[in-house]
Amino acid sequence: MLSFAEGSALIEMGQTRVLCAASVEDRVPQFLRGKGTGWVTAEYAMLPRATHTRTPREVVNGRVGGRTHEIQRLIGRSLRSVMDMSAIGERTIAIDCDVLQADGGTRTAAITGAYVALALACDRIVRDDAARAAPREGLLAAKLREAGLAGRHGCRQAVAAVSAGIVDGQVLLDLAYAEDSRAEVDFNVVMTEDGRFVEVQGTAEGEPFPREALDRILGTAEQGIRELLGLQRQALAAVRGG
Amino acid sequence: MLSFAEGSALIEMGQTRVLCAASVEDRVPQFLRGKGTGWVTAEYAMLPRATHTRTPREVVNGRVGGRTHEIQRLIGRSLRSVMDMSAIGERTIAIDCDVLQADGGTRTAAITGAYVALALACDRIVRDDAARAAPREGLLAAKLREAGLAGRHGCRQAVAAVSAGIVDGQVLLDLAYAEDSRAEVDFNVVMTEDGRFVEVQGTAEGEPFPREALDRILGTAEQGIRELLGLQRQALAAVRGG
Amino acid sequence: MLSFAEGSALIEMGQTRVLCAASVEDRVPQFLRGKGTGWVTAEYAMLPRATHTRTPREVVNGRVGGRTHEIQRLIGRSLRSVMDMSAIGERTIAIDCDVLQADGGTRTAAITGAYVALALACDRIVRDDAARAAPREGLLAAKLREAGLAGRHGCRQAVAAVSAGIVDGQVLLDLAYAEDSRAEVDFNVVMTEDGRFVEVQGTAEGEPFPREALDRILGTAEQGIRELLGLQRQALAAVRGG
Amino acid sequence: MLSFAEGSALIEMGQTRVLCAASVEDRVPQFLRGKGTGWVTAEYAMLPRATHTRTPREVVNGRVGGRTHEIQRLIGRSLRSVMDMSAIGERTIAIDCDVLQADGGTRTAAITGAYVALALACDRIVRDDAARAAPREGLLAAKLREAGLAGRHGCRQAVAAVSAGIVDGQVLLDLAYAEDSRAEVDFNVVMTEDGRFVEVQGTAEGEPFPREALDRILGTAEQGIRELLGLQRQALAAVRGG
Amino acid sequence: MLSFAEGSALIEMGQTRVLCAASVEDRVPQFLRGKGTGWVTAEYAMLPRATHTRTPREVVNGRVGGRTHEIQRLIGRSLRSVMDMSAIGERTIAIDCDVLQADGGTRTAAITGAYVALALACDRIVRDDAARAAPREGLLAAKLREAGLAGRHGCRQAVAAVSAGIVDGQVLLDLAYAEDSRAEVDFNVVMTEDGRFVEVQGTAEGEPFPREALDRILGTAEQGIRELLGLQRQALAAVRGG
Amino acid sequence: MLSFAEGSALIEMGQTRVLCAASVEDRVPQFLRGKGTGWVTAEYAMLPRATHTRTPREVVNGRVGGRTHEIQRLIGRSLRSVMDMSAIGERTIAIDCDVLQADGGTRTAAITGAYVALALACDRIVRDDAARAAPREGLLAAKLREAGLAGRHGCRQAVAAVSAGIVDGQVLLDLAYAEDSRAEVDFNVVMTEDGRFVEVQGTAEGEPFPREALDRILGTAEQGIRELLGLQRQALAAVRGG
Repeated sequence: MLSFAEGSALIEMGQTRVLCAASVEDRVPQFLRGKGTGWVTAEYAMLPRATHTRTPREVVNGRVGGRTHEIQRLIGRSLRSVMDMSAIGERTIAIDCDVLQADGGTRTAAITGAYVALALACDRIVRDDAARAAPREGLLAAKLREAGLAGRHGCRQAVAAVSAGIVDGQVLLDLAYAEDSRAEVDFNVVMTEDGRFVEVQGTAEGEPFPREALDRILGTAEQGIRELLGLQRQALAAVRGG
Repeated sequence: MLSFAEGSALIEMGQTRVLCAASVEDRVPQFLRGKGTGWVTAEYAMLPRATHTRTPREVVNGRVGGRTHEIQRLIGRSLRSVMDMSAIGERTIAIDCDVLQADGGTRTAAITGAYVALALACDRIVRDDAARAAPREGLLAAKLREAGLAGRHGCRQAVAAVSAGIVDGQVLLDLAYAEDSRAEVDFNVVMTEDGRFVEVQGTAEGEPFPREALDRILGTAEQGIRELLGLQRQALAAVRGG
Repeated sequence: MLSFAEGSALIEMGQTRVLCAASVEDRVPQFLRGKGTGWVTAEYAMLPRATHTRTPREVVNGRVGGRTHEIQRLIGRSLRSVMDMSAIGERTIAIDCDVLQADGGTRTAAITGAYVALALACDRIVRDDAARAAPREGLLAAKLREAGLAGRHGCRQAVAAVSAGIVDGQVLLDLAYAEDSRAEVDFNVVMTEDGRFVEVQGTAEGEPFPREALDRILGTAEQGIRELLGLQRQALAAVRGG
Repeated sequence: MLSFAEGSALIEMGQTRVLCAASVEDRVPQFLRGKGTGWVTAEYAMLPRATHTRTPREVVNGRVGGRTHEIQRLIGRSLRSVMDMSAIGERTIAIDCDVLQADGGTRTAAITGAYVALALACDRIVRDDAARAAPREGLLAAKLREAGLAGRHGCRQAVAAVSAGIVDGQVLLDLAYAEDSRAEVDFNVVMTEDGRFVEVQGTAEGEPFPREALDRILGTAEQGIRELLGLQRQALAAVRGG
Repeated sequence: MLSFAEGSALIEMGQTRVLCAASVEDRVPQFLRGKGTGWVTAEYAMLPRATHTRTPREVVNGRVGGRTHEIQRLIGRSLRSVMDMSAIGERTIAIDCDVLQADGGTRTAAITGAYVALALACDRIVRDDAARAAPREGLLAAKLREAGLAGRHGCRQAVAAVSAGIVDGQVLLDLAYAEDSRAEVDFNVVMTEDGRFVEVQGTAEGEPFPREALDRILGTAEQGIRELLGLQRQALAAVRGG
Repeated sequence: MLSFAEGSALIEMGQTRVLCAASVEDRVPQFLRGKGTGWVTAEYAMLPRATHTRTPREVVNGRVGGRTHEIQRLIGRSLRSVMDMSAIGERTIAIDCDVLQADGGTRTAAITGAYVALALACDRIVRDDAARAAPREGLLAAKLREAGLAGRHGCRQAVAAVSAGIVDGQVLLDLAYAEDSRAEVDFNVVMTEDGRFVEVQGTAEGEPFPREALDRILGTAEQGIRELLGLQRQALAAVRGG
């Protein structure tokens, strides 16, 4: 997608399009210095005309809005939950999720796309570490480098997310903006490859919701996420290449 | 608690203490003008020495932090879910939740306390409307005023919240700071008197959590909230008085 | 390019890619109210990983930087110079130029792409005005509407821009980042279809430059701009359709 | 009052209530590093519903207001005037004065309450230093530690403050908000135990005031401060305990 | 001094130089609208190289500092204390005090200079009102206009200010920076022509000061202010001219 | 002009007056540390009542405006183009250009005045370096010091600037505000003593301009700048003195 980023992905879900770019930087936040492990952060923003009518840039107000903060904290937590931080050494991987077009479900699309960018950046770290190690460690290292597998990979497993809601009594996934504004309940579910949850956020829009609604939504969300995990594998295979 | 606020409550949960104040203002946000209905907003802040070591005031950075934004959005949504906005007319009730001391669970304590302040502010609105209506509407209005029940009350039912987590395999409610930092899963649950959910937020701390953990936590949280709803009733009865 | 914007264009010059979106809004700045004429503004930003290494978002500093201000003022002036503001009525066309990838010459690429987005937004205004006028004005208006030419078009002519520099004594157009940092002189030239200048900005990098260098650069820039004007015509024809 | 702060006090003057918390931090401002002496700073803020009608939080404007700055500078100067900075070593004592309810005279109440919090924080420093010294210095240190008097105390004497004004020709102390807005002259007087002044600030509200008014006010203020110094002694004795 | 301002003065006290400019604007703050009276505000700033070593501009921090706020509030209060606000109608006179060079006593120099700029702006208002009234009110108004005295003047009397301190036991007025940093007590005194006080601010630098020091300082300050009031009269006479 | 600045100049062009102050600081920006060469920066601001009607201070908005940024970048680039940065060692010369009164052409006046302040600051550096070197280097150094020429001077040649425009078909230099608003083309030209350009900025006001207009303007601007270079020489000679 992008030429300079260490990893990148453009995810499209309906009309929603999010460009995810991973940057590898050779430093970690203060609280991790000298501990030999890395960190993953995320930022989220929308282009002004991503939306149906233009939304002013946040820099014009001089501050990142509450909704943006909430979303980038969610993306960061979700990605960190599948990382083996010691595998990337004292590096920070910064994931930028920029929404080019927004028609509902941008935060869950961002998580799903961001994982692909993150995994590619971890590929790069493995290759770079192997290349650096090779001259010093001889034949074995060189072989590992050929295989592109010289070190442990930062991602222990994949993670993906869907939004879900109930519209007219039906559970729907990844609601477009028009559907979303009619939904009675609004869930964001983040799940890993091994079927466990990283985040479950359910909010009543208007009326509170009963336990039974929660159970139905989680079931449907799980199916949706399994599908996305498959698409992530295909996208990564295409880049990692035959 | 406070002499000037239209409603107020000081909630203590363990070492955590949150002062909640409700202010009634005769105006509504732009998008509600002329529609005859009201609005409820919430703000949340911590005194610098609420915490174990001093935390700088947010105004020093010139901006409300991401965590604060997230919390005040949660409090506002929770309170609005039980309101009958048409009962308060074109007024805004602003709830300020200021944490005097913080030892875990401040956001759920804030919701539980804020409901009490909100309900008292709605009492006041009912009395004020009755007083204003009385001279014009004669005997009946006067009687309603005596009963303190001249109009519909803004709160349709009560709402309360608990935090919950799993520590060493056990589900615990309202974890203190020291327990919280050992928890494997962190939930905030907001529930209404009729047993439905307003918000369910579950976050994995470290390892993702299985579906079974979610089910156990929701069960325990429900019991805890029922107890808090009882304490809210007692507190309101004490103020509304004999 | 984009589904919601009234006009949009994605311009690629070498590795540089700028997404230009035009938004039509039914209001004008204070100083134009009630005068019956419109306005054109421009904003410019870079995604954090547009650059070779990641650049922090401006919102993090809480302010739009000096370079950004300078560029968006230049884009705005350039576009306004070819507008017939009375043709668009009391509307503002806001052009957002977001750099997806940056490898030199982003401000001139932005101007060239922004013109295409602007022209498409003006097309839309002509169609909308015709549609609104039709029922009231009968057959003639309906015919004009069919032709898509019911009113005057906001753009009187096209405008495009190139950057130019002298590297090792040679005049080069649209220098990539690596060339740019070796250039002795740095020019941005904005020119209209009728061969006149809107802006000529020449800056010495290091040594001041003699008059003769200015003359050579302007000649080469003019040729480059003529080529870009041709590409703009093709792009517009493709959208306006056969 | 507070469980985590190194010293704290809740002062009530009429309806005015100020919560004062002292935090001891093991660092000093740049200009004091390596000099072996400490520093005292103060911050002041009001809860939004401290006032008769709600006042927006300063963080919403993104800046500390002029009045707040003026007050926290005054509190800081007043407290520093009675400190023996060398007695606390390279530590900063930060005093937070948060107004829970405001009915006039908040800045002078803050100074009077802040002194109590400061004195308790200095008690703690004496005890901590003694505890640390004991193992190394043997029996004598241990005895001093028992007595809680191992080192010099940071406060050389007490300091307290009153506001004063002239209403209908009478000098009044600590005017409530309603009286204050009728006052002809407004004084804040900060005085130490030995009867000397730290600050004298007199402002004409409307008409300038003659020298004779200043003399009367200072006399009455002195009496009021002597009373407050007595109450401070009682409060400290209660905490330091029998 | 300045060609565009409605009134201006450049005051020099030792090496200290403050440029004071008065601007008359046809609007008043919200709380005065429709009341027929005016308002006076003041702003204060220092050029970066007014000081012995360069001080960064406040705009670089994005906020007006505490000291600046305190000073501009003092200047505003001092000027308003001598105004007859009803004489200037619904106008605001904004006084800008910009310190070109700073060697102690800038706030008191600013007040003294600002009064001259304010008085000249009030002259201008009287002339303008007379000019506007003349055509409608005939011969008498025309005569008053000739005399430059058609309406009441906004300034009821003059106001001036000195700083004072005790250095080596001696009371000194308008201490230069080097003296100021050795002073034991620091006073700012603002007094009107009729010998009454607008502000008395006394601060202990280090040791608290006894009542007797206050009395000595006020006596000396009064003499200094009388001298400045004379110089103000001369400056105004020179501009109002023969 | 100023007593504390290392170099200063007050330039008047018509009603425009700009105070330029040079500050020498013993540090350089991060990217130059340890390289043995210096840097020159510039800041630009207007006093609020420099303009025909009062303009609010930028600090009130909390940010430096786009126009200000653009101007201070231009001044900085212009001055750096004539510097021999290695001659001043690891020092930064900060030039503050504060507009006391503005009637057109403030940015070009600022450049012309700033050069004088800069040259005087370089004189000071030469003298200081000589003074420091003398005791160590003996007789020769002492002699150079007498001559005030012990080291290389930071300015390799002079630089000055004019604004130019076409009004009613005539090329005019340094247009006053009233002329400027009627101009068809607006140029700023920065030129060095040896007749080469540092910056050429030409902007169409309204209609684009033909190549021929550019040629006429550059000719007239060159004459104007030659005159200014002569006035700079006189000003420097007056200070450097006989």
